[in-house]
Amino acid sequence: MLRVSDAARSSDRNVRVIEFRSDNAAGAAPEILAAIQAANVGTAIAYGDDDVTAQLQQTVRTVFEHDTARVFPVTSGTAANALALTALCPPWGAVLCHETAHILNSEAGATSMLGGGAQMIGLAGDDFLIAPEALRRALDSIRWGDPHHSQPSVLSFTQPSDMGTTYTVAQLVELSAIADERGLKVHLDGARIANAVVRLGCSPAEMTWKAGVDAVSLGATKNGGLSAEAIVMFDAGAADELVYRTKRSGHVTSKMRFQSAQLIAYLTDDLWLRLAGNANARMTELATGLAELGGVELVNRPDVNMLFVRVSDRKVAELKQAGLLFYELRPGLVRLVTSWSTTTEDVERALAAFAR
Amino acid sequence: MLRVSDAARSSDRNVRVIEFRSDNAAGAAPEILAAIQAANVGTAIAYGDDDVTAQLQQTVRTVFEHDTARVFPVTSGTAANALALTALCPPWGAVLCHETAHILNSEAGATSMLGGGAQMIGLAGDDFLIAPEALRRALDSIRWGDPHHSQPSVLSFTQPSDMGTTYTVAQLVELSAIADERGLKVHLDGARIANAVVRLGCSPAEMTWKAGVDAVSLGATKNGGLSAEAIVMFDAGAADELVYRTKRSGHVTSKMRFQSAQLIAYLTDDLWLRLAGNANARMTELATGLAELGGVELVNRPDVNMLFVRVSDRKVAELKQAGLLFYELRPGLVRLVTSWSTTTEDVERALAAFAR
Amino acid sequence: MLRVSDAARSSDRNVRVIEFRSDNAAGAAPEILAAIQAANVGTAIAYGDDDVTAQLQQTVRTVFEHDTARVFPVTSGTAANALALTALCPPWGAVLCHETAHILNSEAGATSMLGGGAQMIGLAGDDFLIAPEALRRALDSIRWGDPHHSQPSVLSFTQPSDMGTTYTVAQLVELSAIADERGLKVHLDGARIANAVVRLGCSPAEMTWKAGVDAVSLGATKNGGLSAEAIVMFDAGAADELVYRTKRSGHVTSKMRFQSAQLIAYLTDDLWLRLAGNANARMTELATGLAELGGVELVNRPDVNMLFVRVSDRKVAELKQAGLLFYELRPGLVRLVTSWSTTTEDVERALAAFAR
Amino acid sequence: MLRVSDAARSSDRNVRVIEFRSDNAAGAAPEILAAIQAANVGTAIAYGDDDVTAQLQQTVRTVFEHDTARVFPVTSGTAANALALTALCPPWGAVLCHETAHILNSEAGATSMLGGGAQMIGLAGDDFLIAPEALRRALDSIRWGDPHHSQPSVLSFTQPSDMGTTYTVAQLVELSAIADERGLKVHLDGARIANAVVRLGCSPAEMTWKAGVDAVSLGATKNGGLSAEAIVMFDAGAADELVYRTKRSGHVTSKMRFQSAQLIAYLTDDLWLRLAGNANARMTELATGLAELGGVELVNRPDVNMLFVRVSDRKVAELKQAGLLFYELRPGLVRLVTSWSTTTEDVERALAAFAR
Repeated sequence: MLRVSDAARSSDRNVRVIEFRSDNAAGAAPEILAAIQAANVGTAIAYGDDDVTAQLQQTVRTVFEHDTARVFPVTSGTAANALALTALCPPWGAVLCHETAHILNSEAGATSMLGGGAQMIGLAGDDFLIAPEALRRALDSIRWGDPHHSQPSVLSFTQPSDMGTTYTVAQLVELSAIADERGLKVHLDGARIANAVVRLGCSPAEMTWKAGVDAVSLGATKNGGLSAEAIVMFDAGAADELVYRTKRSGHVTSKMRFQSAQLIAYLTDDLWLRLAGNANARMTELATGLAELGGVELVNRPDVNMLFVRVSDRKVAELKQAGLLFYELRPGLVRLVTSWSTTTEDVERALAAFAR
Repeated sequence: MLRVSDAARSSDRNVRVIEFRSDNAAGAAPEILAAIQAANVGTAIAYGDDDVTAQLQQTVRTVFEHDTARVFPVTSGTAANALALTALCPPWGAVLCHETAHILNSEAGATSMLGGGAQMIGLAGDDFLIAPEALRRALDSIRWGDPHHSQPSVLSFTQPSDMGTTYTVAQLVELSAIADERGLKVHLDGARIANAVVRLGCSPAEMTWKAGVDAVSLGATKNGGLSAEAIVMFDAGAADELVYRTKRSGHVTSKMRFQSAQLIAYLTDDLWLRLAGNANARMTELATGLAELGGVELVNRPDVNMLFVRVSDRKVAELKQAGLLFYELRPGLVRLVTSWSTTTEDVERALAAFAR
Repeated sequence: MLRVSDAARSSDRNVRVIEFRSDNAAGAAPEILAAIQAANVGTAIAYGDDDVTAQLQQTVRTVFEHDTARVFPVTSGTAANALALTALCPPWGAVLCHETAHILNSEAGATSMLGGGAQMIGLAGDDFLIAPEALRRALDSIRWGDPHHSQPSVLSFTQPSDMGTTYTVAQLVELSAIADERGLKVHLDGARIANAVVRLGCSPAEMTWKAGVDAVSLGATKNGGLSAEAIVMFDAGAADELVYRTKRSGHVTSKMRFQSAQLIAYLTDDLWLRLAGNANARMTELATGLAELGGVELVNRPDVNMLFVRVSDRKVAELKQAGLLFYELRPGLVRLVTSWSTTTEDVERALAAFAR
Repeated sequence: MLRVSDAARSSDRNVRVIEFRSDNAAGAAPEILAAIQAANVGTAIAYGDDDVTAQLQQTVRTVFEHDTARVFPVTSGTAANALALTALCPPWGAVLCHETAHILNSEAGATSMLGGGAQMIGLAGDDFLIAPEALRRALDSIRWGDPHHSQPSVLSFTQPSDMGTTYTVAQLVELSAIADERGLKVHLDGARIANAVVRLGCSPAEMTWKAGVDAVSLGATKNGGLSAEAIVMFDAGAADELVYRTKRSGHVTSKMRFQSAQLIAYLTDDLWLRLAGNANARMTELATGLAELGGVELVNRPDVNMLFVRVSDRKVAELKQAGLLFYELRPGLVRLVTSWSTTTEDVERALAAFAR
């Protein structure tokens, strides 16, 4: 969905750049690198049968307060989403999501491809969140059992949304309940789940299985990981399928202990929440500062670490010249993202660029 | 294809174990970890548009002496194989390979799944290598253009084979020429390509595109990488497809610079050949030692770092008790694999266990 | 999209019913049955290598005034659409069509499934026809070459639309030209193409390849066929693929001569146009009669043989009681379809039911 | 698998030809055409909700003595096989069949394509029938639960085999029991099932569900049908899936009553068995005659209506010159097939050609 401006790209090597393009642009957190180093001792059996991965299994169950959850480390968010969804959705099924969802707009049909033609249906809703009435309407309009039509089988939340807003736990519960009435499974695309957990101040369990969620795409890479995403599956049948689905799509790494070690470190001692907490806090500083500055229209409610603003073409040019790196989605629509590594100084420099 | 014995598994944590299960069980080489650390400076644009990945592109072209080759880093060998093959083979095509090939026996239909039903056809041949006459026979027996039958479209070499033998360059050239007569593309599964390059003493170019190969699955993980495999594609049209095929199967990592950094370090200053050289040398020591010992039947010609031996059930039990880790493929058929990290002391201890 | 009311279903066996549910509900035309009978002489080689199918090839080239067109008989419209589209669209491509198109709403993801995950994108436009500006906007908003997004590859017309409206030849030409600028192929879903040809008074060539169309789903079943649809492919490369795509999806009948014989009879001596002419003429009578009656809101411009009207719940009940068979899409929204076998008496009885 | 000789093809229009190429080359039986004609009265709801198809449902249950069997009419044997198999086999599953099976060798990967990459594994066995020990060996060698390997999920019989031999009921029972021990489902490719039923003198139930079969591909086209095949599904869960799988692969015809009418006529008053009985009887005459003549090597046991013989190149030429139509699989290997329409005179003329 995003394309970096040529200006931003050319300044990539500039040490004076101020990075607000994406949390993906940040490096790996020191704790994550240390965990990789620590896992690099001795030998270990391949393909996830190792002790580190077994330990990750326990870590996930503890963090999510769920005795039978199963975790499948993968190396991209698209893999986590598409594999989780295909395990929950039959080929003739449809996945319902917000019309701005990443799985609908930015994964190039991955779920359809891996899932044998499953369809994605975008739903409307303010604040880039699915509206309960939109979900009800969609489910009511379906001819259930009529094979001319893909049958809604999964509801997918993007939490936080691709536009930086978050569902409250109550909203998740309400939407899941509507889905459950018609037998749909529920998926949560948590590419930035830590940012949402911090924002809501709830437990991971409250935001997921206690709210009716069957599967989570647990993102770590955007929040300090090196290359570590995972599927956390609460549905036992779908988990059994994932054993096969991950392997035959090439998503079982041989030295899985290195993915698992990252994820253990990430989920231990609240590292994930501390890293996300920094990103969120810096965004609050930025948004507050911009509001005080005036003259900049904020498009979204910056619940987490993403802010979309409308600025003039002239301002866009000035920001680039000041070394600010960002995505321009459309002329005048600018995306700013903070990360675990964004500093208050970065924010101040960004605000200075805007103030100029 | 392999299953570790229960005994071997339980001794996993034992510091006294002697690791000969798989080169996948070894850790990452220090140079690889250092490269990751070095890449973790500043920020970088995601999804492979970064400078490190651009540099990898040049490194690959230099190492393979090919001006237009394109490299696609992925995180598993199955991904590299299946994606390369689907870019070369239409859905109604067939991939011809040796009947012991990994792509046929150990990837759970990955190529068929990602390639819309492409078929795999196993060919016979001594030493676990495709025999020219078997290839000719297969191609002659096809009803070309008859849609009742999948049309052979790709010849795939496993070099070295899953049983540790290598094609000579002359053999590759001969087989490629036969394939080329019928318009087939040629793929080389190089999960252990460095071991083969070292063994043959040829250049990477001589073993690949100069021998008629269109695409290489370039393995690094088994030979000291952390999680780094790649497709090296010499066919421009197929490379254009891979841009899409990698993304929509979830095989484009966001922080790709960390994969790319591993691969640059791997291919630089002959690191890959030095690491593979150690594995091959230790295997030569082991095989020579076992031959001197007597009483052990060697199944394959240990061209690289894998040896298959037949031993009695009693000996299997004794080897386990001595702390030797290995795979037992079938009762009495034992696989021993050396790696970049195997030491001469490991070999001596293994030989001692056999000698007992 | 359609579901017959229970009332309508129960009266199915009633000889007094007045059939306006679907042109699919009509039987086969006598000329079609006679052609099948005539083809049932002697023996013939299977799978389309027979003389009758060879003759059909010539018939299609003559009727469409195209020297190299190739025809592929199949037995359902979904097969014709999905196979034609997959031959024109890569797995990472998207098919653009009107948001009410049959291929988007009523084929359960067939194209995605057979095409390895190709996406369908619905476009807006009045009269259930794609608006040129909607097409331009869609093409302008795409990030061409960015693998995060399915790449528009085919524009598909439904001619006539599922709501009974038709594009003029000039509209087809304009839209095709826009598509062609970006390298898209063009498909025409002609499930009711004969009705459109009659309506427009143009030649089949003018409505198809002369207007930039690369492939046609040529419907015959709805218009007097027994079980005969076909793909007419003007694109030589895609035709080569269809040889394989039809077979491996199970869409090559063994006794193809019987499909081919239907299609030859259908296209000979303007039978298809005469049959469609009856359907269109009866609809004109019906629509004119309803307009004269008043009190019924016409939803669409009944260019061909389909009319959608809004009536009260009470009237719906009365119509059912009078023996009128029709689909009620939503409460109060009624679809009426005429066919090759609809008589003026049927229309008069329908009008009488409305007038009551 | 078969290719007609050029000579045979060129003589296609010759009234003096003696047809022994394929039962597919025969026309439709008069009773079948009459049933189509009879079904062409009045109108009927489309897509299989019609009364004729409801009646077929009952007919199938009666003929197969099974209260809950469900029938899905399709228009090709490949569709019946591939759809039945995909409903029984997960994408990561494997279908075990004889190494000469049609589903393995002559359907161009249809099951893999429609089934998301399911694999086919060919088993050995004399007389072109799966040997129990080959089945046991295959099942014993599998690493159950290891996702590196496609998991055997379905055993498929070809009854009769593509080489004209038949399993006894006892053999089917034995093989099904072995499959059942490992949880496999069982499919029977009955493209020529009527010929086998006649041969064995058993009931359709005894050869299918009473012998452990879960799904049957019920062929009718080769045995006097116009275009009518069907899946008879005894497994309720798989039947629920077929509702969707048939539609989205384009295998639900709109005027299904015409397929259903063919199948009702076919299964009524033992028409299918009478037609197959003629084919079998003519083959017995032919095989007996050839044995008496001498000088011709019979390759298979002609249990039903197919005979494979080895003859000299010179004899092949003579047979062609005599107007005999047949397939030559390989130089000197000739296939002769009788059908419902083969006459004793045809056989006598064929014998005369051989005797010359």
